[in-house]
Amino acid sequence: MDDTGTRGYINRKDDYLRRLRRIEGQARGLQRMSEEEKYCIDILTQVSAMTKALQSVSLGLLDEHLNHCVVEAAAKGGREADEKIKEASDAIARLVRS
Amino acid sequence: MDDTGTRGYINRKDDYLRRLRRIEGQARGLQRMSEEEKYCIDILTQVSAMTKALQSVSLGLLDEHLNHCVVEAAAKGGREADEKIKEASDAIARLVRS
Amino acid sequence: MDDTGTRGYINRKDDYLRRLRRIEGQARGLQRMSEEEKYCIDILTQVSAMTKALQSVSLGLLDEHLNHCVVEAAAKGGREADEKIKEASDAIARLVRS
Amino acid sequence: MDDTGTRGYINRKDDYLRRLRRIEGQARGLQRMSEEEKYCIDILTQVSAMTKALQSVSLGLLDEHLNHCVVEAAAKGGREADEKIKEASDAIARLVRS
Repeated sequence: MDDTGTRGYINRKDDYLRRLRRIEGQARGLQRMSEEEKYCIDILTQVSAMTKALQSVSLGLLDEHLNHCVVEAAAKGGREADEKIKEASDAIARLVRS
Repeated sequence: MDDTGTRGYINRKDDYLRRLRRIEGQARGLQRMSEEEKYCIDILTQVSAMTKALQSVSLGLLDEHLNHCVVEAAAKGGREADEKIKEASDAIARLVRS
Repeated sequence: MDDTGTRGYINRKDDYLRRLRRIEGQARGLQRMSEEEKYCIDILTQVSAMTKALQSVSLGLLDEHLNHCVVEAAAKGGREADEKIKEASDAIARLVRS
Repeated sequence: MDDTGTRGYINRKDDYLRRLRRIEGQARGLQRMSEEEKYCIDILTQVSAMTKALQSVSLGLLDEHLNHCVVEAAAKGGREADEKIKEASDAIARLVRS
């Protein structure tokens, strides 16, 4: 956990909130399609679109994390830098494998 | 589009609806985390969990689609079978690439 | 395992062999780059290209598998159809998750 | 392109070469399976194993790239740091999307 108050995405928080609200809307849309017994392939197409939207949110968050938290920790060096890199690598592995 | 009324997932509709509601809740949770300026890595961990949940919904829907719509069309044969297989292959490619 | 002798990809075997030879060449190219201590990002770019080439081979094989083995089994119906669909669904899940 | 001579993976070059040789062997194994007209699902299982092996090579290379090149550039700061982060983010996006 980090407690330095550095949050890379804060400058673009409104953008992320807007994208996450749209993703929430997609999740509701999927429930409606399923409720109305829409065709499975059409539901799957919506799931793929939603997955792509989520992936794009993660890549954005990760980029800002590298640009802020990781760069700052690296500039300080030492154990904190190592830990931040380890943490970022683990998050990247989770994204690539999910 | 299919208009035969065969919807493979219908028997398990309640299960899908419950899973999609949970996914909607995860999307709301992400907005809250972002609103409260939580640490980016923690947000990314939640995004990975949500992506895995969505992926599991798609694999379930696809399996039932193959078991119902595709098997039925294949039993009839002819152009409808070809079209259903083409449609399923395209949906699989979208999933694998998303 | 199937013992019917039906192999969907056989008509296009030469095409698959050519693509797999190119993928083998990419694996050798990666060893050369690594041997010559090329820049990691350039190696990663080649790994992504190779992963995409492999993915495209799998989607092709899967499409032909659905068009041949699965359609045939579905036309016969019964337990064999169920098994083939289960087997295809499992292969799709492995692809989506890899 | 980088010309600083820093190559994060060099200490473990032999390990990468061994893994890439094994991947090359998997590509040759796939050609043999296809030549001998093995069952498509068995070929697909091998393709998934090979994709996972490649993915694991990329995650390793990326981790070392972050630990070496990126940390070094970040310590210097300025435009070079920005460029390295941009380059790493682009490589991550290619991995996540492939």
